Amino acid sequence: MELLRSLVFVPGNRANMLARALGFGADVVMVDLEDSVPPGEKAAACELAVAWVPRLSAAGRRVMVRVNSLDTGLAAGELAAVVSPQLAGVSIGKGNTAWDLQQVDRLLAPLESNAGIPPGSVKVIPWIETAMAIVHVYEMARASQRIVGIAFGAEDYTNDMGVTRSDFGAECYYARAAVAVAARAAGVAALDGPFVGFRDPDGLRTDAGAARQLGYTGKFAIHPAQIDIINETFSPQPDDVAYARRVVAAWDAAAAAGRGSLSIDGRMVDVPVVKRAQNLLAQVAAIAGRTAG
Amino acid sequence: MELLRSLVFVPGNRANMLARALGFGADVVMVDLEDSVPPGEKAAACELAVAWVPRLSAAGRRVMVRVNSLDTGLAAGELAAVVSPQLAGVSIGKGNTAWDLQQVDRLLAPLESNAGIPPGSVKVIPWIETAMAIVHVYEMARASQRIVGIAFGAEDYTNDMGVTRSDFGAECYYARAAVAVAARAAGVAALDGPFVGFRDPDGLRTDAGAARQLGYTGKFAIHPAQIDIINETFSPQPDDVAYARRVVAAWDAAAAAGRGSLSIDGRMVDVPVVKRAQNLLAQVAAIAGRTAG
Amino acid sequence: MELLRSLVFVPGNRANMLARALGFGADVVMVDLEDSVPPGEKAAACELAVAWVPRLSAAGRRVMVRVNSLDTGLAAGELAAVVSPQLAGVSIGKGNTAWDLQQVDRLLAPLESNAGIPPGSVKVIPWIETAMAIVHVYEMARASQRIVGIAFGAEDYTNDMGVTRSDFGAECYYARAAVAVAARAAGVAALDGPFVGFRDPDGLRTDAGAARQLGYTGKFAIHPAQIDIINETFSPQPDDVAYARRVVAAWDAAAAAGRGSLSIDGRMVDVPVVKRAQNLLAQVAAIAGRTAG
Repeated sequence: MELLRSLVFVPGNRANMLARALGFGADVVMVDLEDSVPPGEKAAACELAVAWVPRLSAAGRRVMVRVNSLDTGLAAGELAAVVSPQLAGVSIGKGNTAWDLQQVDRLLAPLESNAGIPPGSVKVIPWIETAMAIVHVYEMARASQRIVGIAFGAEDYTNDMGVTRSDFGAECYYARAAVAVAARAAGVAALDGPFVGFRDPDGLRTDAGAARQLGYTGKFAIHPAQIDIINETFSPQPDDVAYARRVVAAWDAAAAAGRGSLSIDGRMVDVPVVKRAQNLLAQVAAIAGRTAG
Repeated sequence: MELLRSLVFVPGNRANMLARALGFGADVVMVDLEDSVPPGEKAAACELAVAWVPRLSAAGRRVMVRVNSLDTGLAAGELAAVVSPQLAGVSIGKGNTAWDLQQVDRLLAPLESNAGIPPGSVKVIPWIETAMAIVHVYEMARASQRIVGIAFGAEDYTNDMGVTRSDFGAECYYARAAVAVAARAAGVAALDGPFVGFRDPDGLRTDAGAARQLGYTGKFAIHPAQIDIINETFSPQPDDVAYARRVVAAWDAAAAAGRGSLSIDGRMVDVPVVKRAQNLLAQVAAIAGRTAG
Repeated sequence: MELLRSLVFVPGNRANMLARALGFGADVVMVDLEDSVPPGEKAAACELAVAWVPRLSAAGRRVMVRVNSLDTGLAAGELAAVVSPQLAGVSIGKGNTAWDLQQVDRLLAPLESNAGIPPGSVKVIPWIETAMAIVHVYEMARASQRIVGIAFGAEDYTNDMGVTRSDFGAECYYARAAVAVAARAAGVAALDGPFVGFRDPDGLRTDAGAARQLGYTGKFAIHPAQIDIINETFSPQPDDVAYARRVVAAWDAAAAAGRGSLSIDGRMVDVPVVKRAQNLLAQVAAIAGRTAG
């Protein structure tokens, strides 16, 4: 069970911030080579990423790298540089179709082979941040088996649509909801882009809560102070955990007694409910393991 | 003209409630073998349904049965048991694609033949209640000629999305609107799932009104007290009826005079407007027939 | 750079209003043969349109004609009558699929040839105003190279859905947002249908602002008093213009210096941002040219 509640961006060109990230409590440290790195520092940032991925991994961090988009001409080289046994995955933006993501798949396959790691080890989190990607979002979410989540990028999306982004406005509702539905339908995580007001914890809570209410299961952070709030928002809530324990206990008892179905509080508990309960408890165990670790 | 304003669920395992349903004023009595029947009582409920479908039909009720979903392994047997000349249709949940509904079609065809009823007599109302079904909703609504309506199941949908359902919240708007648009595009009824607060008539009115405003033309009830409110909400309103009468009268006059088009109050009245007016008046006649009967 | 901020309807059967339109400040004068012309006056209106298109064009107006929909049987004859070197484009409603618009394409091609104008000169603006068109909106927006924009018709859409239109209600949000996203994904303009309260400038401002916030770049007017408000709403805002000038200047300097990328205020400026800035400045120049002209 891999947690994907909080994914914190760390600029790839900032060695001091990469060092601080050794101690971050985010589920994923996302070393960024894209938006937070100025054009002239791309190559240097890529070298820093190569150096820091193993260190972050050795410190217990699950580490991914966001490379530059395919149309920059930088992606292939960056992927070749960063793929290693310590890299959990990559993120890439500005894709418009499933074809774009299949290109990423084709780039990664031989790199995994060269690195001596099993095919499909390097996971992919594409950004859905253009109108065309919204139109194709379900196909993108299913474009390859590597995809573990899709991220909604409200900043780039509103830029592409030519609209002004408001913190909690109507301009994103349709697209944000479409991404959550497509992610769930494809069986991958729906990940909300960052809340840019990193000194506004209440705003972050509201924003993360709205995302959760649409079906998002995680969110990006652009500042370490955002990590705890995001983890809290996307962790299982006590009532849900208690109910999940009852479901799994009743299911195990029914199986032991040779019964194939069961009810709790007079309500039928079917296989999807049991699976969801099992997933939730696996998530609780994973969180406990992280906290203990 | 078959009315589909109100569809009331009656638990298939409760003989006393099935008896009460003989007098219900809902457009459809939906005998439920799924969510309201505990696992251990499925077979007994199916037997009760077989016994009560003819009685309800003889009492003038239009009666359908909600069978258990395909993945339970119960659907085929239940369909085989309940198909009869007195059964108006079936409802089935948890489908994700048009293919699932084509399976239902394949199960029903030989059963109709065996029962000596014309092919296609048994109508189908699938539930749209998973993220994957939302992605495929238009194809599902057109999956077979038997489909007369599609039902939006907010309870299961929010469960599938992992979100908490609020009575009038944002978590369902996107999916609920998508179902209404797909239904209208496919030429079938958009049916809203039940409002669970059966002792809250004002809440029901608000909820049913919101559904109507999105394009829904009917709604499920889980309690007989909900039927009248639902019928009122989804019946033609007096102003609309008056306008429809003017449209049809003007159209008939134009046809008698050999004119192919017409205007009312200076506004062109085209063929779709005439058809809608005719449908509305047919609905009014159907309601009058029911009330008189 | 062709502006498509404001498109004003002028009834094709009203010579006096066509004469007034010679001086209208709308980006497009749309001579209407459809909804504003009563059935008995269609032929006369088409003749008036044929006569007035060259006059409006000679007066510097960009002029289009809205013909009647394909199912009326009038469209082919009207297109044959109005296509000329002075006609900028046509608009057509009630289409449901890309196929419908490909029919329009097939009708226009030989007419352009006969008129001695280059293929594709006559642009098309289809109306998206049925549930089925919402389902197919992206394919419709890409149905032919002639399409420069798609128009959302809330009046007919709500009529098709059987819902009551409120000025700023929820019944249109899903469809209106879907049209804007599809238009942007297809690279055409999203054009909002008219605000019918032509004596309510504040209502118009609110409505146009809501459309802009969803990604619309223009709006229809049904009264000349609406034109200025619409032009203001959909013109580039001063801050955006200032930023666009900085982007283009920095880009030109980078190109002159042989650099392929750049940043402004520490933020990377990529090719899409540059293109958007260039488009915005072209729009500013086009507006300045119109005002001067």
